Amino acid sequence: MRDPGKIVIALDGMGGDRAPDMVVRGADIARQRYPEATFLLFGDQARLKPLVDKTRWLKSACEIVDAPDVVTNDDKPTAALRKRKSSSMGLAIEAVADGKAACVVSAGNTGALLATSTVGLRMLPGVRRPALCTFLPTMRGETAMLDLGANIQCDANNLVEFAVMGSVFAKSVLGIDAPTVGLLNVGAEEGKGNEILRDAAAMLRAEGSPVVFHGFVEGNDIGDGLVDVVVTDGFTGNVALKTIEGTAKVYTGFVRQAFNTSTLAKLGYLLASSAWKKLRQRVDPRRYNGGVFLGLNGVCVKSHGGTDELGFAYAAGVAVDLVKYHFSDKVVEELERLRQALGEGSATAAGEAVGTA
Amino acid sequence: MRDPGKIVIALDGMGGDRAPDMVVRGADIARQRYPEATFLLFGDQARLKPLVDKTRWLKSACEIVDAPDVVTNDDKPTAALRKRKSSSMGLAIEAVADGKAACVVSAGNTGALLATSTVGLRMLPGVRRPALCTFLPTMRGETAMLDLGANIQCDANNLVEFAVMGSVFAKSVLGIDAPTVGLLNVGAEEGKGNEILRDAAAMLRAEGSPVVFHGFVEGNDIGDGLVDVVVTDGFTGNVALKTIEGTAKVYTGFVRQAFNTSTLAKLGYLLASSAWKKLRQRVDPRRYNGGVFLGLNGVCVKSHGGTDELGFAYAAGVAVDLVKYHFSDKVVEELERLRQALGEGSATAAGEAVGTA
Repeated sequence: MRDPGKIVIALDGMGGDRAPDMVVRGADIARQRYPEATFLLFGDQARLKPLVDKTRWLKSACEIVDAPDVVTNDDKPTAALRKRKSSSMGLAIEAVADGKAACVVSAGNTGALLATSTVGLRMLPGVRRPALCTFLPTMRGETAMLDLGANIQCDANNLVEFAVMGSVFAKSVLGIDAPTVGLLNVGAEEGKGNEILRDAAAMLRAEGSPVVFHGFVEGNDIGDGLVDVVVTDGFTGNVALKTIEGTAKVYTGFVRQAFNTSTLAKLGYLLASSAWKKLRQRVDPRRYNGGVFLGLNGVCVKSHGGTDELGFAYAAGVAVDLVKYHFSDKVVEELERLRQALGEGSATAAGEAVGTA
Repeated sequence: MRDPGKIVIALDGMGGDRAPDMVVRGADIARQRYPEATFLLFGDQARLKPLVDKTRWLKSACEIVDAPDVVTNDDKPTAALRKRKSSSMGLAIEAVADGKAACVVSAGNTGALLATSTVGLRMLPGVRRPALCTFLPTMRGETAMLDLGANIQCDANNLVEFAVMGSVFAKSVLGIDAPTVGLLNVGAEEGKGNEILRDAAAMLRAEGSPVVFHGFVEGNDIGDGLVDVVVTDGFTGNVALKTIEGTAKVYTGFVRQAFNTSTLAKLGYLLASSAWKKLRQRVDPRRYNGGVFLGLNGVCVKSHGGTDELGFAYAAGVAVDLVKYHFSDKVVEELERLRQALGEGSATAAGEAVGTA
């Protein structure tokens, strides 16, 4: 008898470096922002209850479900799978699989969450592999990028499915009507890269494809915001994302050191404090704290393990956006459209390209 | 009858967006910095002669050799190869192959330069594939990275050879005695990544290896300067390098926009002008303008096509460093040492690993 306007969010209460406090406080912020959300909070009831009781908005909209086990940061995926019927992470995922919740948010161990959600939720029809997706600030706004590490190796079909999922993600979370999609490569020209990339590009260029395919993009195009969605394999995507984070950190360090070299520069730094604040807000990692495993039969959002309550609330917001937009249904629809587009172009390619799983 | 203290540098006088003026002025700066250098300048004699005559330091140390053809930015590698006996690029490379020059510097088309130098110079004994290498500013100093795009796919042996070459590059150009080398991966743990990376890591861990192998490194470790040399395949390296450049550009743009939002911030910006200048110098791309094709039987430095004379002079400086350090001989020596190290560990692995080409 669930109210169709309501969104039930399952939370892994024990995942994250500062859990469970951070999770509860984050859920409190999320509840304030999204009054349509109610929460199923999984974890150690004795620890969670007093925390929830202290909250302002959450306490009236949260059911605590005791989970005897916790997935630790050191747990291998296999270990996490063994306790998936007793851990806070596993039970939160199971709530989505059982239809008791519309989505799950966890700041726990990434590998464990990927394995447990893949087993617990299974794949969407037509999707072969899940992909980790996030979005970043760029010169022109925000750009989604996937896969960020769920698949070390990808074939052309995987990349094509990622393109469809990334496109629907950009529509639902970034609010872009007709997002452009680029395949990450070593050059923009058609012949660049390897056969996998060229095959994927050929499929995405099919007439009638639901994806607005820009073509190949290069590493520097990510920050420029040349496209709304950057698609790549999990190895390259992981390296690119961490390289972006590392470069931003280095640059911040260089700026700080430069401003520390003279009294005049220090004074300039102080006068410009509003500028620094604006800059920090613009690149605040908490705002971009919602990696999503796309392609699962259920919405599963991965929050950074080290985030604070504000970051966790942003991750919950990503989950709400995906649920409201009917992300999973849209992906299935668009994959079907792409399959038909490829079928019209070439019957053989269609069968091979995006066949039902 | 060459003076052993002298270094003859062959220059592609016509390569680069602002050639030949930029090349001649860059060589003039290089001659001032390296009085031991003399130049063989290849290109359109009628255009080059008056430019050289106007220089202060170069004119007494430069021989112009007429080359009727030019490799353009649009030339495919095959087109460049066809004119390698008549183009300024091809003849400059030939001067190194013939022993008339110790190294070649070109700001021409990268693909053309790779193809022409690989055919013209051939490979060093024990090296299977050339790799494009450069170095970057990091929090701790400078880090070399390779391959940046010469090889889209690499096997474990390629990566091991790149590690040796990158290590010798860091010794000669960055002046680091015992450079640490990391393999770029999606995590630092031993089991991460694919078989190619794990095999390469196993070979680099061999006892007696000349490489100080740190292990796997991640994208964010590049900017941190965790290791002195980052080794990866040409696809990942190309994406990572361009991502670094793109992120630095975005960050600069964000800073500029932030400082433009209030009068106080603008004043702070002005007061801090010395800080900005220091920062710009520290990340000045001209200082890092010397991509080198390592592994060829001769030193070949690729300058950015869009650089100015100062950038070109830095590229010539990289060539001088490599020649002075006897880069090629050192690489052959270290590869031999690695082969022996692997031979002691496993005779089969040695034969397969770094056999003579």
